Amino acid sequence: MSASFPLPVFHGGEPLYGQLYRHIAAAVRSGEVPPGTKLPSKRRLCALAGVSMSTVETAYSLLAAEGYVTARPRSGYVVADLLPLAPPPAPDVAQPPPEPSKWKYDCSTSAVDVSAFPFSSWARITKEAVYENPGLLQRGHPQGDLPLRAALADLLAQYRGVRCTPDQIVVGAGADYLLSLLLQLLPEYREIALEDPGYPAAYAAALHHGRTPLPIPVDGEGMDPEALAASGARLAYVTPSHQFPMGDTMPAGRRSRLLHWAGAGEGRFLIEDDYDSEFRYTSRPIPAMQGLDRGGRVVYMGTFSRSIAPAIRVAYMILPPALLERYRQTFPHTACTVSRFEQESLRRFLVRGLYGRHLRRTGNLYRKKNALFTGKLLAIPGVTLTGQDAGLHFLLTLSRLTEGELVERAAAVSVRVAPLSQYCHGAAPRASTVVLGYAGLSEEELARAAELLAEAWG
Amino acid sequence: MSASFPLPVFHGGEPLYGQLYRHIAAAVRSGEVPPGTKLPSKRRLCALAGVSMSTVETAYSLLAAEGYVTARPRSGYVVADLLPLAPPPAPDVAQPPPEPSKWKYDCSTSAVDVSAFPFSSWARITKEAVYENPGLLQRGHPQGDLPLRAALADLLAQYRGVRCTPDQIVVGAGADYLLSLLLQLLPEYREIALEDPGYPAAYAAALHHGRTPLPIPVDGEGMDPEALAASGARLAYVTPSHQFPMGDTMPAGRRSRLLHWAGAGEGRFLIEDDYDSEFRYTSRPIPAMQGLDRGGRVVYMGTFSRSIAPAIRVAYMILPPALLERYRQTFPHTACTVSRFEQESLRRFLVRGLYGRHLRRTGNLYRKKNALFTGKLLAIPGVTLTGQDAGLHFLLTLSRLTEGELVERAAAVSVRVAPLSQYCHGAAPRASTVVLGYAGLSEEELARAAELLAEAWG
Repeated sequence: MSASFPLPVFHGGEPLYGQLYRHIAAAVRSGEVPPGTKLPSKRRLCALAGVSMSTVETAYSLLAAEGYVTARPRSGYVVADLLPLAPPPAPDVAQPPPEPSKWKYDCSTSAVDVSAFPFSSWARITKEAVYENPGLLQRGHPQGDLPLRAALADLLAQYRGVRCTPDQIVVGAGADYLLSLLLQLLPEYREIALEDPGYPAAYAAALHHGRTPLPIPVDGEGMDPEALAASGARLAYVTPSHQFPMGDTMPAGRRSRLLHWAGAGEGRFLIEDDYDSEFRYTSRPIPAMQGLDRGGRVVYMGTFSRSIAPAIRVAYMILPPALLERYRQTFPHTACTVSRFEQESLRRFLVRGLYGRHLRRTGNLYRKKNALFTGKLLAIPGVTLTGQDAGLHFLLTLSRLTEGELVERAAAVSVRVAPLSQYCHGAAPRASTVVLGYAGLSEEELARAAELLAEAWG
Repeated sequence: MSASFPLPVFHGGEPLYGQLYRHIAAAVRSGEVPPGTKLPSKRRLCALAGVSMSTVETAYSLLAAEGYVTARPRSGYVVADLLPLAPPPAPDVAQPPPEPSKWKYDCSTSAVDVSAFPFSSWARITKEAVYENPGLLQRGHPQGDLPLRAALADLLAQYRGVRCTPDQIVVGAGADYLLSLLLQLLPEYREIALEDPGYPAAYAAALHHGRTPLPIPVDGEGMDPEALAASGARLAYVTPSHQFPMGDTMPAGRRSRLLHWAGAGEGRFLIEDDYDSEFRYTSRPIPAMQGLDRGGRVVYMGTFSRSIAPAIRVAYMILPPALLERYRQTFPHTACTVSRFEQESLRRFLVRGLYGRHLRRTGNLYRKKNALFTGKLLAIPGVTLTGQDAGLHFLLTLSRLTEGELVERAAAVSVRVAPLSQYCHGAAPRASTVVLGYAGLSEEELARAAELLAEAWG
């Protein structure tokens, strides 16, 4: 039957495997391909449909998972007789996958530009890391392997003025995961001071661990130290490099006031989330607060999700000595959540200078995008921008419209911008303001998005 | 000075990078290599010391991280002037790394045999996964990418009788991480019923999330349903395939009683941890409890840490429909903790039959080790074994000695065995009993360990 096997006419709107899966599933349901029919071999279907092996494998897996076909050892896939045990088709298979945005121009803050990612170097390094390190198959150090931690300590000393030994570093699969670990480590901290407006995932983490988030207002320099002191919290989460979402960089004076707060009471700690610190456009990077801390009161967190790619799930936190021993006693058996092969790949990427080169390349890309996008937006009468000197997003204020109007009119031309109030727990610090990320769009897209916004808001 | 650069005489007791690092650090401290000295280039030191580039890179990273040398752009590493800011040397650098066990024969339960791991296939697949999928650099589905979830649903249906759609699967970096997520998802479940004796990480997870573990006794069939019902808990964690640590397989009758318990009260759920289910030696695998569940009361968990390797940090949980919607609302932005490259590598490993082949190979290895080790241990007068028909560990009872004597006498001949009481919260269900894992030792080592135990306990 292979010769007459029903094949879809592929279109560009969704992944090929989805189209192939759905077409065959429909043919089975309709009886066009009756029970007991042997599906073409994967290799043969590749040739028939002119698609890759991956596409066929995925489509067949979906069909088997849904109960349309059953896999028989050594004889391939056979159309199932009936489906008494099969659950209803999965909703997220029937729908197109959520990734392709419904927005034509999505100025969200989480995207990055991966066009400069050195694929061939990463692929080669990854392969080497597997081949040359059979020992990596066994369980590694719970905090992450020492060679990677040593490379991280070296890198952070050079780039961020962080002072730590490899010993203090905990490697984990993402900053959110590490924040979860840290909260588990500090169960007696029932209230967590968070920036307002602030990073939604930090609020979510506090709530998921049964803690009370205490929103502390930020001004143009970051978290307000007097409001922090008045809150009674002993643990505060801040983003000094590029406050999320306001985009301000915390000046040295504010840093030292926060460090002073931390030193002035028993058991106080600051969590310094140094996200976005890699990219600055008009000035030299400001060293991390951690490097100024003489009292061991700062937990430093960083991630490669933005500086390399969201898919590289490697983040790290640096525990002050007071928490290190506690960490080891609390999590003696917790395995590191990052694959050791990936740890070794990343280490090679760092120490061979590939990371530095990648940062320079992407930094230049972002600088150009930033200049282009901010230049075009500033040409819209009445627009002011803030927080655009660093990181991958900024704030736009246009007082002649309300926040809601800014968002809705942008949406009407298929440009997604976020209302500032979305990140606020008290009153928004600025009216008529939206948050714009630009990292994930090309220069052409940014130019077009700015034109559309100028029309929509004009 | 490179020609006279101080180099260590390498020995076999610790990693080469550690020896190289320590030797140079000592030379800097002693003044033998004075401040301002330029270290040999990495390439040159490779040649001088006859070690690999990785070794030199790691040693130099450690020296820089510790403040012994500073990296200067384009001129390499220079010995630091003084170390006013450097913290004391890291304890875990000064000590040998924790991995090489102090035990000659470590019969712990967490090791696996990775000798059959198909390195070249994995390295090739990994490289392909990177090269062929640039799209994987961007953020993926929060539950894990659909193609991997489809392959998992297919695999689990075939191997474990699990019935689910790819939609219900959440992929994460390790079973402990997923258990943490699940507890965050169910904050109103203040008490968690756990097997006693039971898996220590499950007790730890409950405590780390502020819950009360309720130890429920296990008998030869698993968790006691009457004690469970009497406890008042609405959430119970069980290991039906191979109870940890007792090693019993839960028979069908007990499974249906537990499922009945789950269906008999509002909001009750069973967490089925199907660890070790891949390996059975005397009978066919028993399908997962999840596949018998008609009421959607089972959360199924599995991992590749034992069936592939501890370094592969991929685990999965299958949520019943009642929890799925809640999961999506609770964790809308939580990124999947597994690298998308690794997800794609694993998918290829599964659907190309490499995983099945690997399971058959390692299953044969374990069957042989099991037969050899249990055979020799049963020759010790008075020894009885239980739980040896499945999984990678079993229980040994020898009533003529106390549990403490069994452990201490084994330790005296450098064989590590775990006392059963270590896993118990109430009274140990069996006196004079120890837990023995055998997966991480070779056949020769197992034979020798058994001989030593025979002498020690004879």
